[in-house]
Amino acid sequence: MLSLQRSLNDNRSYAILGTGALGGFYGARLQQAGIDVHFLLRSDYKYVKQHGLFIESPDGNFRLSHVNAYRNVHDMPRCDVIVVALKTTQNYLLGQMLPRLVKDNSVVLVLQNGLGVEEEVAAIVGSDRVMGGLCFTCNDKVAPGHFRHLHYGAIALAEYACNYLTCGITKRMLQVKSDFERAGILIQLAEDLLLARWKKLICNIPFNGLTVVLNATIKDLIGDVHTRMLVEEMMQEMVTVAAAYHRAIADDYIEKRLRYIAKMGPYRTSTKIDFDHRRSLEVEAIFGNPLRAAQQAGIDTPQLAMLYRQLKFLDTYYCTNKAIAVLSH
Amino acid sequence: MLSLQRSLNDNRSYAILGTGALGGFYGARLQQAGIDVHFLLRSDYKYVKQHGLFIESPDGNFRLSHVNAYRNVHDMPRCDVIVVALKTTQNYLLGQMLPRLVKDNSVVLVLQNGLGVEEEVAAIVGSDRVMGGLCFTCNDKVAPGHFRHLHYGAIALAEYACNYLTCGITKRMLQVKSDFERAGILIQLAEDLLLARWKKLICNIPFNGLTVVLNATIKDLIGDVHTRMLVEEMMQEMVTVAAAYHRAIADDYIEKRLRYIAKMGPYRTSTKIDFDHRRSLEVEAIFGNPLRAAQQAGIDTPQLAMLYRQLKFLDTYYCTNKAIAVLSH
Repeated sequence: MLSLQRSLNDNRSYAILGTGALGGFYGARLQQAGIDVHFLLRSDYKYVKQHGLFIESPDGNFRLSHVNAYRNVHDMPRCDVIVVALKTTQNYLLGQMLPRLVKDNSVVLVLQNGLGVEEEVAAIVGSDRVMGGLCFTCNDKVAPGHFRHLHYGAIALAEYACNYLTCGITKRMLQVKSDFERAGILIQLAEDLLLARWKKLICNIPFNGLTVVLNATIKDLIGDVHTRMLVEEMMQEMVTVAAAYHRAIADDYIEKRLRYIAKMGPYRTSTKIDFDHRRSLEVEAIFGNPLRAAQQAGIDTPQLAMLYRQLKFLDTYYCTNKAIAVLSH
Repeated sequence: MLSLQRSLNDNRSYAILGTGALGGFYGARLQQAGIDVHFLLRSDYKYVKQHGLFIESPDGNFRLSHVNAYRNVHDMPRCDVIVVALKTTQNYLLGQMLPRLVKDNSVVLVLQNGLGVEEEVAAIVGSDRVMGGLCFTCNDKVAPGHFRHLHYGAIALAEYACNYLTCGITKRMLQVKSDFERAGILIQLAEDLLLARWKKLICNIPFNGLTVVLNATIKDLIGDVHTRMLVEEMMQEMVTVAAAYHRAIADDYIEKRLRYIAKMGPYRTSTKIDFDHRRSLEVEAIFGNPLRAAQQAGIDTPQLAMLYRQLKFLDTYYCTNKAIAVLSH
């Protein structure tokens, strides 16, 4: 376990890379709490520059009529915390973006789904400047600059170290936690980032994947005897892979999660929302990287392999090609 | 190998159980060739009784203004050849139907997809009165009594014996062949029904299943690198199961079939046509029975198992429930 050395400046500034359903919501809450926030935008830049952000939430709606909006990282100030809230399909941009934004004692907080993203970020900024955050929240974008927070919102926060060594709780984790909690966001501190990632993947893989392939809700999948069995088997595959990486997941974890998830509302998974909008799917981060991790550990995961291939097909035929078609208009 | 004892009467009469895309087409061709044919219908009975049948085909369109149409097997004469061309989802009706139609030396010709249907029929009429036919044809129903034959049309014909023992070529196979060939339908005689069924299933399982789950054409599935690999792996799973039942399929069979299929037109599989019409899917005959055969032989087929569960879900949520909803109007 590492020491509590790693710390950030007081009065921390935040850069939000990707002002979408997630980045827009968390960034707006931080700014509303009086924190200095800088938002990177692409297609909605003009609208947000002029009109700001509007958040709908069961915790209360609010509008920020002025935000620090940027179209280009070159115009942004270096910040203490750089929040990566892009879709992972945009991560090829990080190599240009991050070096422009980090300072000596900055930290990059990866708020993305899937596996292996922290390693990519560490390769750019160094492994002592990376944290991972797993978001347990239901958010959607309604219109430019207009985001809807439906339910939940908590983030599980953990330090990253080379090869996902367990890092314990650092001072800067407490600092980030205090900023988010000032903004009304619940933060759970985790000592083991990789364990947290596998635990989330155990749910994300079957539900994000099968809601797309079968055009279904999570409730449908749990309610049908055949898909429930399939979900459980896929979850079990992931428990086996996690174990190969020395992350033990309790025997009753799957059953407990399913019981919890069955009580959730009819929310769409993020991958289903992407698919319904025909946006590129995060196939590699959520499915491809875990599949390759399984292969590297010599674990056979035929159901994950099949789901990965099905999603690659759907992404190519319905999302990526369509995006190209629209771009070529 | 059995002897050539099994034979039928001269001037054979045919009963067509299920006047759909397949039964309507083959029955109409037989009648057009001067053979005595009797058609069982349900929803289209009134229309066909009044207007007859109309067949569109690259071999030439034709109309039969009068056909022997029945709504109930009780009104039908006993026939020499009873052609089972129902969807397998209707097979629960066979126990009432077949005893009303067979004579001492009748034969029941099962023209259905999947595995195990001959065993069901044999349990009703005795195993010496069953033949299997595998249809290599593209047909669709356009409107009541109006069928479109798109391409191909051949039938592979084989005798059934208890436990799918190999039967060789019998006299009645030649008799049925001569009737169909009089009607312009190519018949290939096969000595081993189970081998013929597995060879067809090797293609039907991945293509019928994945065209539905991924809303794709066969061409799409072959053209995409990920689904092509998935198709090949699923085909390999079936080769392994067939081998466990002592049916050897040559190493180059998969590659040859894929090369042949890649050249076919953009035809929909029968399961995709059913799904697009939200008709009950033949999940048990095409996927469930092969899966259970694999399990009985102790062969692990995780990809078939996953496909089966996905299709069961889609059938329940999009086809069967919808049928119930329509029925309850």
